[in-house]
Order: sequence, then structure tokens, then C-alpha cells
Amino acid sequence: MVNRVSPSRLEAQIAFVLELDRLKQVLRQTVLLDGSRQENSAEHSWHLAVMALVLAEHAAGPLDLCRVLQMLLVHDVVEIDAGDVFVYDASARAQQAEREHAAAERIFGLLPADQAEGLRALWAEFEARQTPEARFARALDRLQPLLHNWRTRGITWRRHGVSAPQVLAVNGVIADGAPALWAYAQRLIADAMSQGFLADGGAS
Amino acid sequence: MVNRVSPSRLEAQIAFVLELDRLKQVLRQTVLLDGSRQENSAEHSWHLAVMALVLAEHAAGPLDLCRVLQMLLVHDVVEIDAGDVFVYDASARAQQAEREHAAAERIFGLLPADQAEGLRALWAEFEARQTPEARFARALDRLQPLLHNWRTRGITWRRHGVSAPQVLAVNGVIADGAPALWAYAQRLIADAMSQGFLADGGAS
Repeated sequence: MVNRVSPSRLEAQIAFVLELDRLKQVLRQTVLLDGSRQENSAEHSWHLAVMALVLAEHAAGPLDLCRVLQMLLVHDVVEIDAGDVFVYDASARAQQAEREHAAAERIFGLLPADQAEGLRALWAEFEARQTPEARFARALDRLQPLLHNWRTRGITWRRHGVSAPQVLAVNGVIADGAPALWAYAQRLIADAMSQGFLADGGAS
Repeated sequence: MVNRVSPSRLEAQIAFVLELDRLKQVLRQTVLLDGSRQENSAEHSWHLAVMALVLAEHAAGPLDLCRVLQMLLVHDVVEIDAGDVFVYDASARAQQAEREHAAAERIFGLLPADQAEGLRALWAEFEARQTPEARFARALDRLQPLLHNWRTRGITWRRHGVSAPQVLAVNGVIADGAPALWAYAQRLIADAMSQGFLADGGAS
């Protein structure tokens, strides 16, 4: 059999590909729009990548769409080991960074060294939120659950007692990556409050 | 509120984004590697896109990786209306083309016209399998279920009585997009036969 590929290189890549399957079993707090079940992090990553395709024109400035797609595709892979932490759970999020770093070492480390380094760098860029691509990717990562909450009349917000000031604080980063999408998100938040499925957080 | 975006344009894009959620409920015949449940087409699309990132070096020739990613992200969106058809079910596949064309019109048609046209063209390119990008994308779309069958000792093959000649015939297109991956796939098929979880299809 003719094979110009190093078997060990391809086998390392396949080991990574098989490991990816586990992200389909990491559940998020977001529920599907029909309320039938929680979303998993693999399908969530897909949803964000397609969102990037159709919403890129709303980014704060010019960006490399291909880099945004790559970042969104791998941004949650560390959850295979570290799990998903609810965005409104501040104490759990504080402890999450170390677990995610260890996960990035192990999971991307299944790949040949050059590729491991490349994907770890993409993940770190997403986390650091310094580049236009990372800021736009993060904006979509916040907008999608907000859209789901709005469309499901706040299923996740109500389940966890999340109020409007928390929603505004956590999602304000959307403005860094996509000001027009933050303007839109603020309209959804106002609508959710006026319809009564997002509490204003005042004394009751 | 300052908003430089046409509200109707953004609202059309958001309608499409919300519609995408339904792909998370389209089930495929492939099962997750632990055998716990069927895979859905949204998480499958994510899996293929990450595979493209790490396996692009095995493509038959130079290609535009960004275009491969975009194609893989949207290639199954038509299944929201048309459903998934098992790759080994030849009669169902023959009737599927018309349903998928109608689905592409409706679903991509939710977007502003310029974007609808762009995504329909990407989907049609994937289906036509004429460009290097489409051939490589198709190769991954065949390789991933084969990997899952091999790793689960042929769960789906055995459930549907699929034999080695069928597997070789259906997956031979991998060679068009990625000869080295087809060489690898043939090794998996031989291994599955020698381990007894893929029937040779001869008279028994």
C-alpha cells in the first residue's frame, strides 16, 4: 500500500478526532428552543460558527473570518475534561481556569506537536479576548444563549434566578466585538423585562 | 439608540440563526463512540469541521481550508426539512434530492438575498463534488461514520446488515478527496472484517 503519510502522525490526528466525540456529551445550561433538552457543547460550537458566517458584517471592525471560525470550532474542546461552567456562576468560573489549562495541554497534546501548538494558541487567543477575532467570537458566545433565553421566555434565567443587572453585566462584552449586536441584545433584554420573564433585580 | 444596521436585515439573519437550532434534533444513524445515543447533524457538522482543521494536509491537493470549513458548517442544514437519509439506503437517497433542494430554498431563503445566494452556492458545491474543497469535505463526511463504526465494533453496520462490499463502494469517494485517508480507511475495513464485526457479504 502506498502511503506518503507518517502512520504515527495520522494516528495521533485520529486519536484527537476520536477524543472530540466526548464534547457531544458535555451539557450546557442553555436549552434548545423547544425546551426539550439541554444543549451540548459540540452542537453549540457549530451554532456559533454558522452565526459567525452570517453575522460577520456586524463585527466592530475588519477581521479574518477564517480565524474566527477556527477559534469557535475549538473554543470549548477543553470542556471535555473541565466541563462547562454556567456563565452566571462567578465562584465556579474563578476555579475553572486551571482546569481548562490542564485540559488544553492534554487534549490538544494528543495531536502532533505543531498542530497541538496551533490549536492551543487559538484557544488561548479566544480566552485572552485581545484580538478583533477573539472579541467577535466571544460576542457570539454570549449572544447565542441570550437569544435562546429570549426565545424560550427565559427558561434558564428563571431556573437559576438570574436578573437583568446580571444579564447586562455578563453580556456587555458583546459590545467589544459587535456593537450592533449589543444594541440588538439590549432590545431583547428590555423586551424580556417588559414581558415579565426577566426580573429587574430590585427589592421585591 | 444608534444602530447603523438595517433592522430588517439583522432580523432576517437572526431568524435564520434561530432556525438552525432545529438541526440539533435531526438524528443520524451514527452513534456516539460510547454507544449511548445517535449523533445529531449539528454536532456531526462540528466534528467534521474540526476534522478538516487537523486533517487538511491529507487532501488530494492544495485547497482553500476556509471554504472547506464553511461548506462543512452548512452542508447538512437542509436536513432541518429533509431529514437525514442513511448512506446505505439507496432508494431513499434517490428521492432525497428534490426534498433537499426545496429545503435549501426555504432555509437559506430566510437570510438576506445576498447571503442566501452565498450559502445555497456553498451547499450546491458540496453536493456537486467537483471542486477540491467539496471532494475533501465529502471525504471527511464519509470517514467520520466509518471511524465510529470501527471504534464501536460496527454498531451501525450490524444493526442494518451492512457488508464489506457496500462499505467499500459507499466510501470509495474518500479517495477522490484524500487518498491517504482512503488508504487508512481501507485498513480499518480490513481490520473490521478480520475481527468479525463487518461481514464479507459472500453467500453464507
